[in-house]
Amino acid sequence: MPGITIGDTVPNLEVQTTHGKFKLHDYFNNGWTIIFSHPADFTPVCTTELGKMAAYLPEFEKRGVKLLGFSCDDVQSHKEWIKDVEAYTPGCKVTYPIVADPSREIIKQLNMVDPNEKDSSGNQLPSRALHIVGSDNKIKLSFLYPATTGRNMDEVLRAMDSVLTVSKYKVATPANWKQGDPVVISPQVSNEEAKQVFPQGFETKNLPSGKEYLRFTNV
Amino acid sequence: MPGITIGDTVPNLEVQTTHGKFKLHDYFNNGWTIIFSHPADFTPVCTTELGKMAAYLPEFEKRGVKLLGFSCDDVQSHKEWIKDVEAYTPGCKVTYPIVADPSREIIKQLNMVDPNEKDSSGNQLPSRALHIVGSDNKIKLSFLYPATTGRNMDEVLRAMDSVLTVSKYKVATPANWKQGDPVVISPQVSNEEAKQVFPQGFETKNLPSGKEYLRFTNV
Repeated sequence: MPGITIGDTVPNLEVQTTHGKFKLHDYFNNGWTIIFSHPADFTPVCTTELGKMAAYLPEFEKRGVKLLGFSCDDVQSHKEWIKDVEAYTPGCKVTYPIVADPSREIIKQLNMVDPNEKDSSGNQLPSRALHIVGSDNKIKLSFLYPATTGRNMDEVLRAMDSVLTVSKYKVATPANWKQGDPVVISPQVSNEEAKQVFPQGFETKNLPSGKEYLRFTNV
Repeated sequence: MPGITIGDTVPNLEVQTTHGKFKLHDYFNNGWTIIFSHPADFTPVCTTELGKMAAYLPEFEKRGVKLLGFSCDDVQSHKEWIKDVEAYTPGCKVTYPIVADPSREIIKQLNMVDPNEKDSSGNQLPSRALHIVGSDNKIKLSFLYPATTGRNMDEVLRAMDSVLTVSKYKVATPANWKQGDPVVISPQVSNEEAKQVFPQGFETKNLPSGKEYLRFTNV
């Protein structure tokens, strides 16, 4: 049984990190944050992922989004391992903090446990969980991948662009949407209201039901 | 608080669908299945998503993977709405079943509830949850997206290719991996064993730690 899921508030836990000790809400600081766990330092997929996160960091920073890593190794291990990560992904620096959680208390509360992965001592290991946390400290979107599947940072960025866009306008993003593509107008917005809210206009698709719910616009 | 998460067995619930009544495990039939929920029929993002799922169906079928949709509307509504979905995505047929769950009992058990979305009667609505279910009826990987963010079927397919690949070989897939890219050898496999298991050879990356854990091969 997991801990928190989308819609839940991330508990304001105090965490020990590669950047010192702090409370999660202080780090979030009413901004958008991506929190993500990895099973263990000095393991292959994690090394490629942390490097990719560092490579995509300028894109996240451009959007005002912070990153925060989590795993169960201690701070000293994280610091040694970062040298490997940076060597594998030349030109990239892991400037975001990584939480150390040797007791597994934090990953359990944050729904970041992989039930199928244990270390050599039989202790639980984190999954590849990734939660997008909104400026209200609530989880907006989650990826829960097993230890054996590395994440896709292009999809993380695409999902981030979606949640940022829908937080600003009365719209949603269709399947396979990418930044710059047309968006759909929320069903709660009447055609009358849509004319005012979207002066750029919108296109209503003709459907067999005759219902006018599939309305595209650009924002 | 959610219901099941990765590692958990999908309960063998009896469901009413557009293809009649059946039990979930009978539908899975010891094969791989993608189960996914959508908030409501006759709404914009869902229409684009179900159409995309139909468009990608040949790719999933090629991999022996079945699809099963879920939402809270009734079977008659699903059937009427499918006409809209197919009209919006020409050439595609929604040939996979969609579960009807007017009582919300099923979506709650399957961790498919969006806490922020309610219908006009105040009833809970599903999130865009998508679980990849293995041939052992257990959840291998989950996406939990809010109602306002349509999923990306390319990422669903990529993740599916990853879990299928790692189910066959002692490997994992690195960040941003796509089918055909090199994979990494699992840390549990010693170099000695790797030489036997991967006669095609493998490349070990040189890292500052001197540890030989980042080993790429092709499968």
